[in-house]
Amino acid sequence: MNYCVQKMNRIIKVLLFCMLVTWSAGTYAQTWIWYPGDFEINLANKMQNRRTDRNTFFPPFWKMDTHYVLVDFHKDVELKEPETITVYAEGMYNLKLDGAAVETGVNQLSVPAGKHRINMKVWNQSAPPAIFVKGITIVSDTSWLVTFEDKEWIDETGKTSDISATKWMNAGSWNLNDPSIMPSQFHLPTRPLSAATTTKTGNTFLVDFGKETFGFVRLHGIKGKGHISLYYGESKEEALSTDDAMTLDRLHFTNQVQADSTMPLSKAFRYVNIVCDNSISIDSASMLYEYAPVPQRGNFTCSDDRINKIYEVSEYTLELNTREFFIDGIKRDRWVWSGDAYQSYLMNYYSAFDNATVTRTMMALRGKDPVTSHINTIVDYTFYWFISIYEYYLYTGDSAFIKQMYPRMQSMMEFCLSRRNRDGLIEGLAGDWTFIDWAAGLSKKGEISFEQILFARSLEAMSVCATIAEDKSYINIYKNLAENIKEKVSEYYWSNQKQALVHSRINGTSTTNVTRYANMFAIFFNYLNDGQKQAVKRNVLMNDSVPKITTPYMRFYELESLCALGEQKYVLEQMKAYWGGMLDLGATSFWEEYNPGKKGAEHYAMYGRKFGKSLCHAWGASPIYLLGKYYLGVQPTTAGYATYTIQPQLGGLQWMQGKVPTPNDDIEIYCSTKQIKIKGAAGTGTLRIKSKIKPTGKNCIVNTSGNDWYEVAIKPGTEYIVDYKAFE
Amino acid sequence: MNYCVQKMNRIIKVLLFCMLVTWSAGTYAQTWIWYPGDFEINLANKMQNRRTDRNTFFPPFWKMDTHYVLVDFHKDVELKEPETITVYAEGMYNLKLDGAAVETGVNQLSVPAGKHRINMKVWNQSAPPAIFVKGITIVSDTSWLVTFEDKEWIDETGKTSDISATKWMNAGSWNLNDPSIMPSQFHLPTRPLSAATTTKTGNTFLVDFGKETFGFVRLHGIKGKGHISLYYGESKEEALSTDDAMTLDRLHFTNQVQADSTMPLSKAFRYVNIVCDNSISIDSASMLYEYAPVPQRGNFTCSDDRINKIYEVSEYTLELNTREFFIDGIKRDRWVWSGDAYQSYLMNYYSAFDNATVTRTMMALRGKDPVTSHINTIVDYTFYWFISIYEYYLYTGDSAFIKQMYPRMQSMMEFCLSRRNRDGLIEGLAGDWTFIDWAAGLSKKGEISFEQILFARSLEAMSVCATIAEDKSYINIYKNLAENIKEKVSEYYWSNQKQALVHSRINGTSTTNVTRYANMFAIFFNYLNDGQKQAVKRNVLMNDSVPKITTPYMRFYELESLCALGEQKYVLEQMKAYWGGMLDLGATSFWEEYNPGKKGAEHYAMYGRKFGKSLCHAWGASPIYLLGKYYLGVQPTTAGYATYTIQPQLGGLQWMQGKVPTPNDDIEIYCSTKQIKIKGAAGTGTLRIKSKIKPTGKNCIVNTSGNDWYEVAIKPGTEYIVDYKAFE
Repeated sequence: MNYCVQKMNRIIKVLLFCMLVTWSAGTYAQTWIWYPGDFEINLANKMQNRRTDRNTFFPPFWKMDTHYVLVDFHKDVELKEPETITVYAEGMYNLKLDGAAVETGVNQLSVPAGKHRINMKVWNQSAPPAIFVKGITIVSDTSWLVTFEDKEWIDETGKTSDISATKWMNAGSWNLNDPSIMPSQFHLPTRPLSAATTTKTGNTFLVDFGKETFGFVRLHGIKGKGHISLYYGESKEEALSTDDAMTLDRLHFTNQVQADSTMPLSKAFRYVNIVCDNSISIDSASMLYEYAPVPQRGNFTCSDDRINKIYEVSEYTLELNTREFFIDGIKRDRWVWSGDAYQSYLMNYYSAFDNATVTRTMMALRGKDPVTSHINTIVDYTFYWFISIYEYYLYTGDSAFIKQMYPRMQSMMEFCLSRRNRDGLIEGLAGDWTFIDWAAGLSKKGEISFEQILFARSLEAMSVCATIAEDKSYINIYKNLAENIKEKVSEYYWSNQKQALVHSRINGTSTTNVTRYANMFAIFFNYLNDGQKQAVKRNVLMNDSVPKITTPYMRFYELESLCALGEQKYVLEQMKAYWGGMLDLGATSFWEEYNPGKKGAEHYAMYGRKFGKSLCHAWGASPIYLLGKYYLGVQPTTAGYATYTIQPQLGGLQWMQGKVPTPNDDIEIYCSTKQIKIKGAAGTGTLRIKSKIKPTGKNCIVNTSGNDWYEVAIKPGTEYIVDYKAFE
Repeated sequence: MNYCVQKMNRIIKVLLFCMLVTWSAGTYAQTWIWYPGDFEINLANKMQNRRTDRNTFFPPFWKMDTHYVLVDFHKDVELKEPETITVYAEGMYNLKLDGAAVETGVNQLSVPAGKHRINMKVWNQSAPPAIFVKGITIVSDTSWLVTFEDKEWIDETGKTSDISATKWMNAGSWNLNDPSIMPSQFHLPTRPLSAATTTKTGNTFLVDFGKETFGFVRLHGIKGKGHISLYYGESKEEALSTDDAMTLDRLHFTNQVQADSTMPLSKAFRYVNIVCDNSISIDSASMLYEYAPVPQRGNFTCSDDRINKIYEVSEYTLELNTREFFIDGIKRDRWVWSGDAYQSYLMNYYSAFDNATVTRTMMALRGKDPVTSHINTIVDYTFYWFISIYEYYLYTGDSAFIKQMYPRMQSMMEFCLSRRNRDGLIEGLAGDWTFIDWAAGLSKKGEISFEQILFARSLEAMSVCATIAEDKSYINIYKNLAENIKEKVSEYYWSNQKQALVHSRINGTSTTNVTRYANMFAIFFNYLNDGQKQAVKRNVLMNDSVPKITTPYMRFYELESLCALGEQKYVLEQMKAYWGGMLDLGATSFWEEYNPGKKGAEHYAMYGRKFGKSLCHAWGASPIYLLGKYYLGVQPTTAGYATYTIQPQLGGLQWMQGKVPTPNDDIEIYCSTKQIKIKGAAGTGTLRIKSKIKPTGKNCIVNTSGNDWYEVAIKPGTEYIVDYKAFE
């Protein structure tokens, strides 16, 4: 490749990069805009109210907020040339140029050259007020300012004076760029899928789609008059159990001629058991697969096919649970749960890296003021929300979102602070659900160490966000509060005898009960010193007498803490056994809970119901995160990958290769026991490797950092090939 | 009338009374129910967004709240016999009997004998979730409990436990008793009205309805193709001014055959100027008069026909402004303004006594948490809201409403308290509009005495409501805060030199400017001693060198304070001159502002616009209140007229008679200079009269209270005829 071609390639890359920024930020093209959070909260209401339980509407049990019904949008412009704008609105609107309103029905406006203010005020009770403005230079985008309480000051003469006292925010947007489609009409795309097999018995059809899937079942060639019932199953047993299948449809047709019918509500299933009256018949069934069009950017393959299969099924599990929002599970609850979503965000940073789904989910979870309960009513879930925003910033560098959310973060934290006990600690009050994990016999009494650790981390997150939002006085307030909690964690819960954090403190007395939860978080939050960490590893994490975790949810953190301690080899075996165990049972997506001790259809039961368990749960997909962060070994060290480290750890694999996405481009990695190939992304990377020999290679400037560790600086877009010798 | 007939009459009366209670409380019959405030807030949004300004949608400039989108209703019942209920809902719903849900589509449920809980949970984005339950003993009414955040506690076993931590409230309702009409479909009734005269000039029609009116114009016999414009006028000048008429409609028709058309939006007008293209013609125009079906219970007639006419036009003015809510004016703004509504409430207690319009208006004004600005953005308007709730309680005794509103009162007061200055006083901050009155040159700077007086009174109201709501610790907190403000009012604003309250204090220094506002409120709030009151009367109220009030709005309080000082004779002359002055100018309803110094069409101008003034403004109707309270002389002394006084004052009239409504029945009064006839209402009344002779009469036990004053106890339903001799 000669110099010219290289240069051309670079120009093309820059152009592509600009286009990507334009697309992902959605700020340079005209697009539908709204009050930040309004579209997201309402979309979440729609999605979460699609849960059904045996044909019964099953809404969430927490407060649902909604949009501001009256919103004012404005933009100050300075035009060199006059231009005409065309406006669209979802709602009844008032359009003003420099304070002068146009008559109702007019949606075009000539704006003369010079400085002008354009206002649109929109009222809509049923959907978020939104606007779309199409001009030459004047276009609706996030540079428009919005308010829901635009106080226009009227002075003594009765004239409207300035609007300086009004709180304006930058508008919210996404990628809804078609003025003819209102934001409230948004829905996910679908594509047709055929059944793998259909077994007819009498007038009953058992349809198998070959693997877990999601969408709208279609019945073809319905003829006759009568009832048809559809029983959905994530397992064959569930579909065949007309008494216990968790979801079902009841239909009635009077069809003179053959017709098709698509179910109005999407469902999760692999199997559908279609039971027809004798007076009615169908030809066949297929489905419309509904999906979020979010391409995977990250990937991972390695020398172990079992791990490759686990990675693949994890990706599919996450794909199914990445919808309008990151949801918990596709059969039930189809709700946005903060603790579940938190894990999806982390997996997302190593797969699709789709900021919009992350921020949409965080906005939906937070809702609006006033705060009347914890997020999803769960104490720990509120804390994950704070922490997730900090980590979103770390991975993406999106400070605009932090500034936008900061007021809502602050009122949420005010709620938490107002609910501390006399000792300044978090202890469940009436209305608080202390979840931690689904684990039999887990005590929720008193001051639980796990909650204090999440609380401290949340306060640290608040301090960082206060810095970004320039709320100067609070930077230290939050920091000091966090320090104070961390000191108490150490004083109250660290047991010298147990050499571990104990579970709780009841009536001022520390218990002697040791559980895994606080211990594992304290490791990767770096709240313990090295000696304590090693003790915890020995006494808790790798100690079978401490009650085992049976959900992939908490296994996520358990394995993460072991990875943080360099136990990649052990974790790889755990992954193969635990996730591999589900594969051996025929899993085509990963489950809400997996207890290897159970047998047959026992696995499908949960919550006291035969098929209560979700067989496709987002928190089942954590290998994506573990393999990307702790095997490929990529993580940002400053916001948005301005700096980052790559510390590959084979953990017993012969080789592995993959991509890790960053805000602008991907980091590509190949690693065997002898050679590492890297292509860096925008930002400054550091490759860290342990090697028996001093590594060498093209483009490499190798620094020795002691104890057989070496560092290589990684520049954007450059390819590095490093020869080294792994210890294992 | 023999004894039997009397007894029968009494039985009939009791039955009628029971029916009345049933109707007005709306609690014993099955009716649509919702989360309290939700229906009201949404109805207010609809109404307030009907304002137009020259065919432009003109929404309010304050935050509009909306309904809770997900609401859970429940009722615990104990049945002797099984019964079947039929349920209706506005929204998607989930119906449960003892926690077990029925399938979607089922709206009937058999409830066995015994104890049961019935739940309905309803989701609706566009209209308030509402239910209607029809059974034998199980009916939807305000005994049902509702919540928007029903936290159902899930314990370790995954089972839903009790709901004790949820905040439940009694449901809201009104008189929407037809299950086939959803609450969101509610609209006021209309009746057809003909035009008084129509003048055709070319293809233009000037239609005069004879007096101020409100509703939907109908065009009859439209034929042809072309545009028709309608220019509405409260005055003939306005209708004829196509450039300056405040409201108008633009229509386009393509009618092959003659057809009628009703305007979709109601308007206020006396005149309509209908301008048709030459290519189109109409036969005539009429209207649908839209009204609130709220019968007048109070009335007043007297020996002075000018006063009778003023009373009649006041009643009509109030009727037109009593709609879904008490609004300010029917042409513009058609909005719910707290200061305006406050006066309508007081007038209502002496006319329709319709509690539902009062509470609906108060709920709409308050909206929801969080509080982000003053009510209507106006400091004084927030204070009127607090005071109005206390007075509503005094007139009606409706403690259930106080309990329901108390949490929202408290958060509103928290907002006010958080905005005090260093001295603990109210001083306009960014975002606050200090209104007081439309008066040229009125200073709004610094700590204004008027605002402190309203603030003190609001705190007193809070203390009373804290007592009713059993919020014990706050009873004294509010009381002490009120005392503190009152002390400061006395210390900072009472000028010994001026013998009056001064207007304001700027940078810690009292000004020497005297205005009427604080002085008049201090009189009827009883914040001054007798000597101070007499000084204020001399130096302020009856002193022409103190700037005059030009709005009926503040004339209300000015005349009330004079009445409170016994100046009925002077006030009667003022009423005749001021309100009579408007009648002399052809007013058929009373105006937003009246300055006798202006001439001709000057009277119609306001806000810098030729026809900016409202010629039908609720605050113009205050004679209703003044004549009822200070001439017939009736007022409650304890909540809900449990005790009340009647102190008739002829104020120069030869005789007067009238009715004053109370929660259960009316007080009837006739008074001449020689004789007083009274029929008492439920509760214990006291007739107080000043007489040259000791009064005597049938059923009367007369007590002497000194200085020629006498008292007669008035029992429910009894008729009294008292002979006395008036001093004047």
